[in-house]
Amino acid sequence: MSAVKIGIAETMFARADMGGLAEKTLKENSASAKVLRYAVPGIKDLPVAAKKLLEEMGCDIVIALGMPGKEEIDRMCAHEASMGLIQAQLLCNKHIIEVFVHESEANNEKELREILRDRVIKHALNALHIIERPELLQRKAGTGQRQGKENAVAFEI
Amino acid sequence: MSAVKIGIAETMFARADMGGLAEKTLKENSASAKVLRYAVPGIKDLPVAAKKLLEEMGCDIVIALGMPGKEEIDRMCAHEASMGLIQAQLLCNKHIIEVFVHESEANNEKELREILRDRVIKHALNALHIIERPELLQRKAGTGQRQGKENAVAFEI
Amino acid sequence: MSAVKIGIAETMFARADMGGLAEKTLKENSASAKVLRYAVPGIKDLPVAAKKLLEEMGCDIVIALGMPGKEEIDRMCAHEASMGLIQAQLLCNKHIIEVFVHESEANNEKELREILRDRVIKHALNALHIIERPELLQRKAGTGQRQGKENAVAFEI
Amino acid sequence: MSAVKIGIAETMFARADMGGLAEKTLKENSASAKVLRYAVPGIKDLPVAAKKLLEEMGCDIVIALGMPGKEEIDRMCAHEASMGLIQAQLLCNKHIIEVFVHESEANNEKELREILRDRVIKHALNALHIIERPELLQRKAGTGQRQGKENAVAFEI
Amino acid sequence: MSAVKIGIAETMFARADMGGLAEKTLKENSASAKVLRYAVPGIKDLPVAAKKLLEEMGCDIVIALGMPGKEEIDRMCAHEASMGLIQAQLLCNKHIIEVFVHESEANNEKELREILRDRVIKHALNALHIIERPELLQRKAGTGQRQGKENAVAFEI
Repeated sequence: MSAVKIGIAETMFARADMGGLAEKTLKENSASAKVLRYAVPGIKDLPVAAKKLLEEMGCDIVIALGMPGKEEIDRMCAHEASMGLIQAQLLCNKHIIEVFVHESEANNEKELREILRDRVIKHALNALHIIERPELLQRKAGTGQRQGKENAVAFEI
Repeated sequence: MSAVKIGIAETMFARADMGGLAEKTLKENSASAKVLRYAVPGIKDLPVAAKKLLEEMGCDIVIALGMPGKEEIDRMCAHEASMGLIQAQLLCNKHIIEVFVHESEANNEKELREILRDRVIKHALNALHIIERPELLQRKAGTGQRQGKENAVAFEI
Repeated sequence: MSAVKIGIAETMFARADMGGLAEKTLKENSASAKVLRYAVPGIKDLPVAAKKLLEEMGCDIVIALGMPGKEEIDRMCAHEASMGLIQAQLLCNKHIIEVFVHESEANNEKELREILRDRVIKHALNALHIIERPELLQRKAGTGQRQGKENAVAFEI
Repeated sequence: MSAVKIGIAETMFARADMGGLAEKTLKENSASAKVLRYAVPGIKDLPVAAKKLLEEMGCDIVIALGMPGKEEIDRMCAHEASMGLIQAQLLCNKHIIEVFVHESEANNEKELREILRDRVIKHALNALHIIERPELLQRKAGTGQRQGKENAVAFEI
Repeated sequence: MSAVKIGIAETMFARADMGGLAEKTLKENSASAKVLRYAVPGIKDLPVAAKKLLEEMGCDIVIALGMPGKEEIDRMCAHEASMGLIQAQLLCNKHIIEVFVHESEANNEKELREILRDRVIKHALNALHIIERPELLQRKAGTGQRQGKENAVAFEI
């Protein structure tokens, strides 16, 4: 089997180096994964960037990183980007893991940093596992896993 | 005729083992149905997972299970996931039965559990019947069937 | 010319037999039209059902019947279903006449029944005419036709 | 060069003969343009009608005419129709000029009539120019052109 | 390598010559880039114009320029146009840089002019760099770049 190739689509708009952290996480957790990075201006440019990573650059999966602002218009942009990311996946039959951190999720910069670190790291691992070890995700199905904050309490049904 | 193959797409985000309950229901109600499970991080990852179950893994139908949270952003994610699930169906000409239980539907955990059990079980049966016994659905057309709560009262027109 | 084939996609969720009324209307108004019925759980299952009626079962047109509930979430489901129905039409180059009656349109059950009857009957005829007698629709263009209530007043421009 | 063929997609729902006015405008301003009219029940039926005019009936461009009502549900229908019209254009690589007049735009019937006339006439000319004289549109780029009301004031940047 | 070809899709609705400024910026910053301009009535006409620039006129990238008005309906139009621009990109596997300036972003005409100039110029350069020098975008990933206003403060994670 040839080495896994993971794409990172990221924005100039984001206020922190989400792409660098994602790449570091992938490298530390996979000896063989090859990482490709692709920067665009903002989150609405991510869908086609991710699709190009999957179709033209041969990635097996893409992590799409973005930091929508606080305004109503930013929420709408995030919605449009998300719809595009889902369509891109359906056109490629491959996963794109969306990692968006909204500025409005945090009360201050410290909290924002913690959410960012936690979400980027956990989702980088999720992307790796989807490709290399899907059984790890299956084991966690229905267990209230959260990225960016503490896991929720699971219960029996 | 070869055995029916039913896919279950489910999330790590959900706080209860919806996939396990769906699988159990399918197995108890069909001697021959083969069940495939596919876990992803969250509901926005379900559309491509469902499409892969239908196109790459040969499923005849998919049940897509998720538990959106209470926040406004969760409602938006559910909307985006739903749009993607509908697009995936149109691209495959096969059904994907969406089984989403919003945390906000219940007043407490007991109620949430009851909604979850009822909706998962009834929709697992719906999926089975769409493939194996469509006449059962036809018989119930226009009769106010509900999943997750009591049926509504039907009336003559 | 072979006989016209009209599909009826309908839900178990609806509280009245919209499909039966549509079929009766079609049969009373066309000696030759063949009618196919296809029942699904809810309105979000209608787009792929309609597409299968058009593509796999050879229908010339489909009538998609549904009764969205009163809640905010029901309005969102109706929106998603509508978007899917439009996409299905674009993929097939055939019409799907959406006949949705929202519970919130009526103040009581009597009114609801009247809206249902009027809208189902008029749209069943519209579907028939689109296929068999498009000149009848052309004659009514710009005349304030309503289904489910009285026509609006037209005016000169 | 063969004669330009312009499609007019229009609704029975509209309260005024928008299609007639559009056809008259086209005929008065082009000696050779051929006009095809296609009537459907409501605005959500316009996308596939426009696509059939473009793909099956050989139109070079389509004008899609509609009059959404005042209710919240009407705004949603107009949104769904607009999304469908954009998708139809992308699938055909041809323009569809949307001419929607919302009842809520006007304070009274007189105003509504004026908006209707102005918007239909100007957009019929826009459609004609896109096909026959694109340089006329280019000359007006960035100049605050409005259809249905007075032009906005343009300024230097 | 043949010269880069950049498309500019612009509207008659915009109140300032965004297209002229974009073209000037491109010409000043690239000795070889060829620029094609395409004017349409409003922002909802941009998606298919951009797609035609990419597919039929051989552009490598498109800049889509628009100035949505202040009303609720204008925000909806911008949303629909944005969704169409994203779909067009996914269908072409090429970037379309959306440059929309909402009238509501500015408190007065002077501010509006400044936002317009800054956003058009910076995004024209972004488009050029995506095609000719992607490493320049990569260097700015995660650094809080803004178009139309001052950059945001970046921080370490």
